[in-house]
Amino acid sequence: MDRPLFGGIEAGGTKFVCVAGRSPDEIVVKAQFPTSDPQATLKQSADFFREQEKQWGKLAAIGIACFGPLELDPSSPSYGFILPTPKPGWSNVNVAGYFAEKFNIPVVIDTDVNVAAFGEWRWGAGQGLDQFIYLTIGTGIGGGGIIHGKMMHGLTHPEMGHIRLPQDVQQDPFEGICPYHGNCLEGLASGPAIEKRWGQKGELLPASHPAWRLEAQYIGIGLINLVCILSPQRIILGGGVMKQQHLFPLIHTEVTRLLNDYIQSYSIQHNIAEYIVPPGLGSRSGVLGAIALASEQIHS
Amino acid sequence: MDRPLFGGIEAGGTKFVCVAGRSPDEIVVKAQFPTSDPQATLKQSADFFREQEKQWGKLAAIGIACFGPLELDPSSPSYGFILPTPKPGWSNVNVAGYFAEKFNIPVVIDTDVNVAAFGEWRWGAGQGLDQFIYLTIGTGIGGGGIIHGKMMHGLTHPEMGHIRLPQDVQQDPFEGICPYHGNCLEGLASGPAIEKRWGQKGELLPASHPAWRLEAQYIGIGLINLVCILSPQRIILGGGVMKQQHLFPLIHTEVTRLLNDYIQSYSIQHNIAEYIVPPGLGSRSGVLGAIALASEQIHS
Repeated sequence: MDRPLFGGIEAGGTKFVCVAGRSPDEIVVKAQFPTSDPQATLKQSADFFREQEKQWGKLAAIGIACFGPLELDPSSPSYGFILPTPKPGWSNVNVAGYFAEKFNIPVVIDTDVNVAAFGEWRWGAGQGLDQFIYLTIGTGIGGGGIIHGKMMHGLTHPEMGHIRLPQDVQQDPFEGICPYHGNCLEGLASGPAIEKRWGQKGELLPASHPAWRLEAQYIGIGLINLVCILSPQRIILGGGVMKQQHLFPLIHTEVTRLLNDYIQSYSIQHNIAEYIVPPGLGSRSGVLGAIALASEQIHS
Repeated sequence: MDRPLFGGIEAGGTKFVCVAGRSPDEIVVKAQFPTSDPQATLKQSADFFREQEKQWGKLAAIGIACFGPLELDPSSPSYGFILPTPKPGWSNVNVAGYFAEKFNIPVVIDTDVNVAAFGEWRWGAGQGLDQFIYLTIGTGIGGGGIIHGKMMHGLTHPEMGHIRLPQDVQQDPFEGICPYHGNCLEGLASGPAIEKRWGQKGELLPASHPAWRLEAQYIGIGLINLVCILSPQRIILGGGVMKQQHLFPLIHTEVTRLLNDYIQSYSIQHNIAEYIVPPGLGSRSGVLGAIALASEQIHS
């Protein structure tokens, strides 16, 4: 019998990425399209998987890394739904249920960042760790992770972009862009915040631009709050803003300075470049995490 | 055969509390003495347990809720030691090993707050939850908790008192008292911070004093950072400062205001008085947690 094939979806607010495969080395096919209204976007994903099934045989399970907020309480009647969201049309859409009904196979869904963390745990920079955080810094800021071998859940799911942090308004009078909180971490340090503050997109600003030192300050404060609250064994930073690789050393310096040797740990005090790292799977953490999660439905 | 009896120690920076017992209803005896130098204090605890053994028979295991920082990596040669600490004489003291050697029974140690959380999980306000936080606000501020059914560990252990948060220096120009970070949460909102800012001990300030509104602001910001990072199912607030019961409604209001309906959860939006709560075990969370932890060494 052939080894089972899995479907993976990275369901983002601006684009959907669908893959069929088994592992980082066995992604047999991939498609990508813009996120439009839910009916059309979900159908387009299902059509892609149907096409693959014609060629490769039936999928064994589907994993979905989805934008949120999501209902993840398995005892809730709306498990797997997108909760009320400002994104037009997507409130209360039953994303997981749509595929479960169409394909009649196990479908598992979690937040984009939890699933990316799951992918990094299986095949990337989180391998072998009991507990780590994956933080994405891009259009928004979001965090997930693995703790004691499971994805981070709780009352709902983490919303790490919305922590509050000190802002020196003498240095940076920017009021922040979060519609809920103004100057939370996402409000001050997401990609759109950089663009609004400096009048152009981050990717157009040179590495020497003062934007990056300020960005590293805010990310640094966010990370020390994470370290103090969770004591992660590693922090993986992904997302569009973190494609600016020159941010990493600036962030390492900030975190070390801010913690001021309070946390007695070799990793933080002497090896921070391997403590705060880019994703091992590059930009594929989400889709590969979705494949890993799907495969776990069959193997566990 | 008699049911096993356990020893529990709450090893604090200012006092040690020792108990022998089985559960909240079966604490057979209790002793308390000031923390002096480690040799004398540990011997005093051991002598107490020896006395109890004469009357009640051999202890089956000992649990210790200890001030930190602690080495909790079981693979480390200094597992169970207190790490370098400003507390004179206590750096690198092998607290767990002292009792293990004297009594030749299982001895388990963890941070005071993790053990208090464990006690609340077994018998208090954390019963039945998969994941919650116990935060103590007193001489210092520290946090621990249960996640996926285990105490919070990671690179080291949480140091929740040292998160950074916004401070409105127009309203509160106080520079904070943390020797490492100045105005971190502990620096701004611990008992000694209240005393230094207002010139007298918190317990002497009336409920109408502006100190409490400010205190609730800082605790509120700290808690929303906790909620955004961890999404706990409940937050238990213990410690000397939280004996000011009138702080709870002020904190509930602050947390609701600051989250601004961003987290879609009935517990936070409509039932916050049962979401942020005092310890179910009152001031006994630590010692009872130590008993619970000790009993788990035998029953698991």
